[in-house]
Amino acid sequence: MAWNRKHLLDIQSLSADEITTILDTARAFKAVGRRAIKKVPALRGKTVINLFVEPSTRTRISFQLAAQRLTADIINFSAEVSSLRKGESLKDTTRNLEALNADIIIIRHSAAGAPHFLSRILKASVVNAGDGSHEHPTQALLDVFTMREKKGSLKDLNVTILGDILYSRVARSNIWALRKMGANVTLAGPATLVPRMFEKLGCRVVYDLKDAIADADVINILRIQHERQRKTMFPSIGEFSKMFGINKSRLDWTKEDTIIMHPGPINRGVEIDNDTADGERSVILEQVTNGLAIRMAVLFLVNGGQGPHEVTG
Amino acid sequence: MAWNRKHLLDIQSLSADEITTILDTARAFKAVGRRAIKKVPALRGKTVINLFVEPSTRTRISFQLAAQRLTADIINFSAEVSSLRKGESLKDTTRNLEALNADIIIIRHSAAGAPHFLSRILKASVVNAGDGSHEHPTQALLDVFTMREKKGSLKDLNVTILGDILYSRVARSNIWALRKMGANVTLAGPATLVPRMFEKLGCRVVYDLKDAIADADVINILRIQHERQRKTMFPSIGEFSKMFGINKSRLDWTKEDTIIMHPGPINRGVEIDNDTADGERSVILEQVTNGLAIRMAVLFLVNGGQGPHEVTG
Amino acid sequence: MAWNRKHLLDIQSLSADEITTILDTARAFKAVGRRAIKKVPALRGKTVINLFVEPSTRTRISFQLAAQRLTADIINFSAEVSSLRKGESLKDTTRNLEALNADIIIIRHSAAGAPHFLSRILKASVVNAGDGSHEHPTQALLDVFTMREKKGSLKDLNVTILGDILYSRVARSNIWALRKMGANVTLAGPATLVPRMFEKLGCRVVYDLKDAIADADVINILRIQHERQRKTMFPSIGEFSKMFGINKSRLDWTKEDTIIMHPGPINRGVEIDNDTADGERSVILEQVTNGLAIRMAVLFLVNGGQGPHEVTG
Repeated sequence: MAWNRKHLLDIQSLSADEITTILDTARAFKAVGRRAIKKVPALRGKTVINLFVEPSTRTRISFQLAAQRLTADIINFSAEVSSLRKGESLKDTTRNLEALNADIIIIRHSAAGAPHFLSRILKASVVNAGDGSHEHPTQALLDVFTMREKKGSLKDLNVTILGDILYSRVARSNIWALRKMGANVTLAGPATLVPRMFEKLGCRVVYDLKDAIADADVINILRIQHERQRKTMFPSIGEFSKMFGINKSRLDWTKEDTIIMHPGPINRGVEIDNDTADGERSVILEQVTNGLAIRMAVLFLVNGGQGPHEVTG
Repeated sequence: MAWNRKHLLDIQSLSADEITTILDTARAFKAVGRRAIKKVPALRGKTVINLFVEPSTRTRISFQLAAQRLTADIINFSAEVSSLRKGESLKDTTRNLEALNADIIIIRHSAAGAPHFLSRILKASVVNAGDGSHEHPTQALLDVFTMREKKGSLKDLNVTILGDILYSRVARSNIWALRKMGANVTLAGPATLVPRMFEKLGCRVVYDLKDAIADADVINILRIQHERQRKTMFPSIGEFSKMFGINKSRLDWTKEDTIIMHPGPINRGVEIDNDTADGERSVILEQVTNGLAIRMAVLFLVNGGQGPHEVTG
Repeated sequence: MAWNRKHLLDIQSLSADEITTILDTARAFKAVGRRAIKKVPALRGKTVINLFVEPSTRTRISFQLAAQRLTADIINFSAEVSSLRKGESLKDTTRNLEALNADIIIIRHSAAGAPHFLSRILKASVVNAGDGSHEHPTQALLDVFTMREKKGSLKDLNVTILGDILYSRVARSNIWALRKMGANVTLAGPATLVPRMFEKLGCRVVYDLKDAIADADVINILRIQHERQRKTMFPSIGEFSKMFGINKSRLDWTKEDTIIMHPGPINRGVEIDNDTADGERSVILEQVTNGLAIRMAVLFLVNGGQGPHEVTG
């Protein structure tokens, strides 16, 4: 299916066909990443702005490298060094960046909806690199890309997402993507972080770890975000780890071919132990590699690329 | 007229012909910015250093992108992360950067005269990106470029510069450029910020806003620089805004086709209101676009380019 | 001799032939730096990560520019803005960077042995840009490159290294390189900073400046690192300068063609005076130029380049 969107703002508004187009395009770009010369001229002479108002080294670098491998010119712009300090608004900042003939503005922002707001006032393409607790679409896309690659199909796949669901944009975007692609989603964690309301999105909500992972083909373990959680919701790290941490012995509760995912950075010994993170079933580092391919695909498509058949060297 | 200068240090020492060469060259580069591939190979294999000892995101990014679109290799070097912290002098820092075969060093510095000093000790080309309260030549060039584009000619054009003239390098460079190009310059603002001595530069000094803007073809509104002004010179922001702020109702005091300019970032509600900043007469975002073209032209010319006829894809 | 190493971790493990291969390759790249287009396509489509966990503007920029001139894609990653703040380990950080298909990871780290550790866990090439007080191999290589260029041969050359030897990775790497290449090494400075144990590495240890420099062909003056030295070891800057500082009058104690080197940044008036630093015998800025050529050679070789005969435009 041909791609017709100018922006990538969320997963919620995408169709299953559009998601499939992104995944197929990313597969073509992943092949580029295995070549001796890991670069295509698709975005030569285009200007990409990496606007990170909330800090994130990993996602920023992944987008930067994706733009470089598409031969775009890339500008990193982070709020710490910007004139946002001088009281300039996000609207003025982005319109000024756009006036530099920017073709694509990638934005990470602590406010949910910031990318949607920008897409209404800018002529440039807008890519959401994470907005508040709302969505993180490229993370979800790389997650489902990895699952499809490992398991063949997303249809009827049993995926368990584990941990801090309530505050997680990664969880939200994953739930949308997985449900659209026909996967079965189980959410598990402490009741304060996994409210029953998520059942309305078509998910199973479970508070018992054994039950949550017994039939899972995929366990996607979220990072415990100390910095975001209110103390009242979260008794202690030790308690979480004891009840919901994935470790070597708990892998016995799963099927033999269950794969372990994590968006990183991991808290070793908290939500995951060393044996599991570095073990044979872990695909955590492959997720990073796939993230680069997904971001190349997204930048390529929002800039007017039609699909995987157009990816060439 | 062919360009023969190795540096761009100020506007004061340029001739009208030289300014015209820069503007014409920038016009050619602006056309490049509208192409699908916004890039020319003019500076391929050249090394450009962005040395910002005083913070400025906008000007730095504009120069960075200008260098990228000329296919130069660009290094950003800001004082916060530099060995200037270790007590190294500007002389040693720049000579070390030059020893990396740098072709062009762009410098912003809080000390007036820093670019001139460097031009005497370095073999590389030096471009002034703002030195203290002295000059900001590329800002003035993009301002007169915008005026010429909008009004056809600078000859006998009535330009009013409004606000903090005394401490403004933007004002100084604009006055030099406009007077050389035959424009009539009116300066207006509180008496403490617009001393009569500027009349010696051939400007009209006016303390009444209505009088200052009645015949203006262009109103160039400077940013109120809270951080630089001494309290004794500047009673209050509210008072300034009341006396000299440009807003919708005051636009009635101007001619119908007066254009509104501002070097940015704007203080909405202080020196300019939202209606004016975002209104039909505002060319503020076009200034940003033109700034990129001017900076491409300047980097091109100081590196040995002769003029607009040499700009190609 | 053909190059067979995947990493550059130290000088200690290199043979004289390997050092010669690097120097000869750097000589070819230095010629590239004198061309109008200072760029070769050798690393096109390769990804180089500049991972600086300890701050260093000069070395980082030198490596960045080296990578750019080899047409690589380069990512700067410094610990201040990284998720190392979130408690992620060096191991996880670098494995994640590598998962972005990184070909070469350049690392500066305050812990001795960090590059060796990485070389054991990563598939990417690792280049040591300075590890604790252990080694700084590219600095030593640029130093011996400069000596060879100026003096024709390193064999039997008399080299005096002056200053804080005890804590200096520059001194350590220089000693290894010079001894392997057949030079005679004299170490001089206060006894607390130049212990006798260095004699075991084949060096002469001298506590009298006149004696130390009388026969020197080269004097390599180290930077006094205020920040690293314990107060008990180092009475005062003034005292050091008085006893071991190199100044105009002390140059009379040397041979007429003795050259003066310093890894920079220099403390003017402390270990070296202005006349000497900027005088005819100083090759300090040429060291910077040569550093770029050395780093191009190292990146080229660890990426599979065989030697100088392969360096082309």
